[in-house]
Amino acid sequence: MSARVNPGRGSTHPATTSFPTGMIPTVGPVPSAGALPAPGGPGASAAPAVVALGGGHGLSASLSALRHLTDRLTAVVTVADDGGSSGRLRRELGGLPPGDLRMALSALCDDSEWGRTWRDVLQHRFTSEGSLHRHATGNLLIATLWELLGDEVAGLDWVGRLLGARGRVLPMAAVPLDIEADVLGLVPGAPEELTSVRGQVAVASTEGRVANVRLVPPDPPVRPEVVEAVEGADWVVLGPGSWFTSVLPHLMVPGLARALTTTRARTCVTLNLAVQPGETDGFSAEAHLEVLAAHAPDLVVDAVVADPVAVTDLGALRRVAESLGADLLVRNVSVGDGSPRHDALRLAAAYRDVFAGGT
Amino acid sequence: MSARVNPGRGSTHPATTSFPTGMIPTVGPVPSAGALPAPGGPGASAAPAVVALGGGHGLSASLSALRHLTDRLTAVVTVADDGGSSGRLRRELGGLPPGDLRMALSALCDDSEWGRTWRDVLQHRFTSEGSLHRHATGNLLIATLWELLGDEVAGLDWVGRLLGARGRVLPMAAVPLDIEADVLGLVPGAPEELTSVRGQVAVASTEGRVANVRLVPPDPPVRPEVVEAVEGADWVVLGPGSWFTSVLPHLMVPGLARALTTTRARTCVTLNLAVQPGETDGFSAEAHLEVLAAHAPDLVVDAVVADPVAVTDLGALRRVAESLGADLLVRNVSVGDGSPRHDALRLAAAYRDVFAGGT
Repeated sequence: MSARVNPGRGSTHPATTSFPTGMIPTVGPVPSAGALPAPGGPGASAAPAVVALGGGHGLSASLSALRHLTDRLTAVVTVADDGGSSGRLRRELGGLPPGDLRMALSALCDDSEWGRTWRDVLQHRFTSEGSLHRHATGNLLIATLWELLGDEVAGLDWVGRLLGARGRVLPMAAVPLDIEADVLGLVPGAPEELTSVRGQVAVASTEGRVANVRLVPPDPPVRPEVVEAVEGADWVVLGPGSWFTSVLPHLMVPGLARALTTTRARTCVTLNLAVQPGETDGFSAEAHLEVLAAHAPDLVVDAVVADPVAVTDLGALRRVAESLGADLLVRNVSVGDGSPRHDALRLAAAYRDVFAGGT
Repeated sequence: MSARVNPGRGSTHPATTSFPTGMIPTVGPVPSAGALPAPGGPGASAAPAVVALGGGHGLSASLSALRHLTDRLTAVVTVADDGGSSGRLRRELGGLPPGDLRMALSALCDDSEWGRTWRDVLQHRFTSEGSLHRHATGNLLIATLWELLGDEVAGLDWVGRLLGARGRVLPMAAVPLDIEADVLGLVPGAPEELTSVRGQVAVASTEGRVANVRLVPPDPPVRPEVVEAVEGADWVVLGPGSWFTSVLPHLMVPGLARALTTTRARTCVTLNLAVQPGETDGFSAEAHLEVLAAHAPDLVVDAVVADPVAVTDLGALRRVAESLGADLLVRNVSVGDGSPRHDALRLAAAYRDVFAGGT
């Protein structure tokens, strides 16, 4: 690999090096959000086309950063949630779980009173003694559009227009998925025995150690818009997020995995700031990369972004990154108050340097 | 009263006589829907400022007609519903019942793909075996905005902006109301005995005959926006709608009734096309006017619009209208297929003639 991503040099980049120009926010409704034309042809100094994979708060973090760099942005979102408001809607109405899709759309809202107000409406949760308690309004709105239009992507595009979203949000599969894991350490006295655990909530909160995960059904249909976005991307960004339940699942959807291994896009993996209680207890930064490689042996990784707080053995992490063919960028990308949250602008600066190195 | 409304002459009016000009629909989001400046000063040939009072399908009918005549339109909507999705939300979340407000906003949506799509979203009802069954998405959206903004009128204005609404929708009182009625004929063998019935659903569907209605609380607070709209109106339109539960309640809110009796606006009463099963079984057209006068003795009525299908004794109806000081306009304003629904354009034509007579 080239030395395009150099952890020792990034901080000397002028802050404006590769920020795209002409990114005046549009004011909603945007007639065709997500289908924005590229500002320039191939090879022009345009904003990069980026596909971000993930779910939940992790994907919100990468999108909140990436929106500073490009409006050619597509989020491909996990649809395996079976908990909370999404899980209840999935059981009651039968469609995709909308919660992670809602969060991704909210992270892309136009930065105006209009965009922020509708984002707040989407993110609002009812509090009551009754059956609406903890339902998110955006989940109900998305479910409504799906029932009305009969097309999940069309419904998400309408929510994107409502928010004036700077990009498009797509589901990683066209049908609801379940995550099933083999977990170690759940059988007293038999630490090496594997127990099958089913459901995103159960896997993410298991007290055992996740050995591997799989999807049910194992080969779900994938929307053509997802394949097109991956094939047309300059960069694919994977993570941060719950590793086994929000990051790895994308690599296990065969139709999506094929696109990820055949696309000309480069791939950047963003490591988490803290281990996930439960599913990745005791996992080092390098272990995250190893389990990624184990689940997607054909995936080429070009860059890895890690925060120093999550790195205990820099040498080991660098060796694993290099074994995947990836450059390692170690940067302060957290909010800096000790909480394990990414700072949108610091993470944007890291992605900028990753993308600049890729030219 | 002048002869400005002459039932025998209206049909000879040229169709374009008093249609306002310059009414190109705006495309949502409209930054300040409901606060549109008048196209001309007082006395100019501008569209009239109209306040429509009512609730439910009746108010939707008057608004669907009035939107053809003016964008200086304010709906003042009953907040006494205790049934269906609204009743459940009122009990679970504690705010105003949103259903009639939602229907009024939907009737004012911009006539574009944007406006119609969000109207359809608002009007959508879930169908399930679970707790969302029959909830209307717009009710949940309105309840969310109320919780977020802490101001019912601000929340309704945001929904109006979403829809690109041609006018503004306000609640007739700032707190939820209950309707209580004295009903005849519910006690076997004692047809003259009065029984107290409480709740809009119970009153609207009673098998007895409603003698009178009252509100609980009897003197609820009224939003200043409502008083301002009534005081600044050229015309107030009352009805059609469920007489005892959607039309008369407005006249029993003291703060609103005061504004209605002191405003310079003229008042037009639109009679129903069919008796309401239950609450107005056996009520003639003239009985509707009589019960209106009994509940609001200080109200001056300037015009009454009636469809021939609802008039069995034209002489009697004319005598009661004249006793109120009102001109009577008898016109075909129903859809014409025998169903008791108003036709928006025929009703618009009737209102146009009523308003033109008022100059």
